[in-house]
Amino acid sequence: MHDAVPPVRLRLDLAYDGAGFHGWAAQPGLRTVQGDVEAALARILRFAAPPRTTVAGRTDAGVHARAQVLHVDIARPAWHAFAALKAPKASGEAVLRLLRRLNALLSADVRVLSAAIAPRGFDARFSALSRRYCYRIADESCALDPLTRGQVLWHRRPLDLERMALGAEPLVGEHDFAALSRPRVGASTVRRILDATLRRTSTGSIELWIEADAFCHSMVRSIAGALVAVGEARRDPTWMAEVLTKTTRESAATAMPAHGLTLEAVRYPPDTDLAAAAEAHRRLRGPVFRG
Amino acid sequence: MHDAVPPVRLRLDLAYDGAGFHGWAAQPGLRTVQGDVEAALARILRFAAPPRTTVAGRTDAGVHARAQVLHVDIARPAWHAFAALKAPKASGEAVLRLLRRLNALLSADVRVLSAAIAPRGFDARFSALSRRYCYRIADESCALDPLTRGQVLWHRRPLDLERMALGAEPLVGEHDFAALSRPRVGASTVRRILDATLRRTSTGSIELWIEADAFCHSMVRSIAGALVAVGEARRDPTWMAEVLTKTTRESAATAMPAHGLTLEAVRYPPDTDLAAAAEAHRRLRGPVFRG
Repeated sequence: MHDAVPPVRLRLDLAYDGAGFHGWAAQPGLRTVQGDVEAALARILRFAAPPRTTVAGRTDAGVHARAQVLHVDIARPAWHAFAALKAPKASGEAVLRLLRRLNALLSADVRVLSAAIAPRGFDARFSALSRRYCYRIADESCALDPLTRGQVLWHRRPLDLERMALGAEPLVGEHDFAALSRPRVGASTVRRILDATLRRTSTGSIELWIEADAFCHSMVRSIAGALVAVGEARRDPTWMAEVLTKTTRESAATAMPAHGLTLEAVRYPPDTDLAAAAEAHRRLRGPVFRG
Repeated sequence: MHDAVPPVRLRLDLAYDGAGFHGWAAQPGLRTVQGDVEAALARILRFAAPPRTTVAGRTDAGVHARAQVLHVDIARPAWHAFAALKAPKASGEAVLRLLRRLNALLSADVRVLSAAIAPRGFDARFSALSRRYCYRIADESCALDPLTRGQVLWHRRPLDLERMALGAEPLVGEHDFAALSRPRVGASTVRRILDATLRRTSTGSIELWIEADAFCHSMVRSIAGALVAVGEARRDPTWMAEVLTKTTRESAATAMPAHGLTLEAVRYPPDTDLAAAAEAHRRLRGPVFRG
């Protein structure tokens, strides 16, 4: 009978320090963000088995997130049982209580920043319009801020920011990133880059900000690797456009270490367009879509 | 003979993550920032014994620094021997080489941000006009950013920022901080606070920015503790003015944990006033002055 009632879909926004996790995706016997979050949800909601979460960006081992988004469906009776414990009326109050209890259970390296009943049509993965990542590199030993060294790659050789910025220009637009990602059988490697900006921070380190509708596996880290080859003058800036025409992995675009990478934002359309966006992306990307 | 020639005084600016150190000051058998920096200097300059450094702010165990300043005197022959290794002329080139070698030797939790021949009259401790610290507190579990949790205190109870700001108002000016510091025999506890500002960051945590000509032992952490008592409504904002009239340690002003505290800046006068400032502060503070 209960199955006929639609579940309650929750949206959770998270931040985590990737250093202590084997990435987002649950894996038996390994500590993962998904594993920790689902276990905490199961405990709070008194589920025998953890509920399955769906995430906007499946980050790899060691990659950080400042604004990850997930959704999770809770069967309505289970949600009512939880919500009724102390606050029979207000769903908002129950959601706030869930947020607090999650943060009390989770370790300090993962935080739930906000929790809400998801708007109708919301899908953390398929409704997302874009993901925004930042890759950080210190190329002067004095620029490796000790207080943020877990999120910035130390690169021994100096990098030419202007060359890198030139190299990044052809990335914007729709391309096949087969040469700049790790292949997955049956998955398209065509993605649309919305922004690729390089800047030097006030403390002297380099940031690559990159936003795309979605990313293939190892794509940001491979792009960062290719731009480092350009910044070191091992390759010309014009080489990047060439790489984008290749259909196999470019060996000179080494995937850079995970700890320099942070998922910084996930962008969604207005609530009225959530369902349509999800439908369109589901058709476009299919089930092997990684986010 | 060599003693007649004045040594070369170097100014080094440093940043460090205090978590791995037993504070600034060298202590036998313990890892300290001073110990690490002096050992690296000795190794690079081929000294049998480490040169003594003088620091602007002697931070306690666990306290961080984003802009610590020290000076160190190097006997001229030793400096010339080092500078001549590869660059017989330029002192600037030698200083840059020293900077690079220091950072190559030091662990990633301490970085030398810059190195320079100190201007005439410069004394890292006595020339300083002021020190600026920030104490960071997250009072909502969701505001404890996992990526900066080593520098932000997690406080279980919610804090009222406006009450804390009211409480901080009477701090500005010259006061005896006997009630808000750990006493040291023979040392004055009179200090001049130039700024005491509270703000909530975009991510929801609280920052206490405090600048003074100098600080007594545990002074910022005791002030933060007193303001937390006000922010929790255990004390009235008006209580702070009362505390400032007391001559013994105020028990309600618990020194807050070290990891929330960061030395953010040290301010010096223009080069022409460095010697006069040092002379004045030396007279005012005397040998037990802590910085």
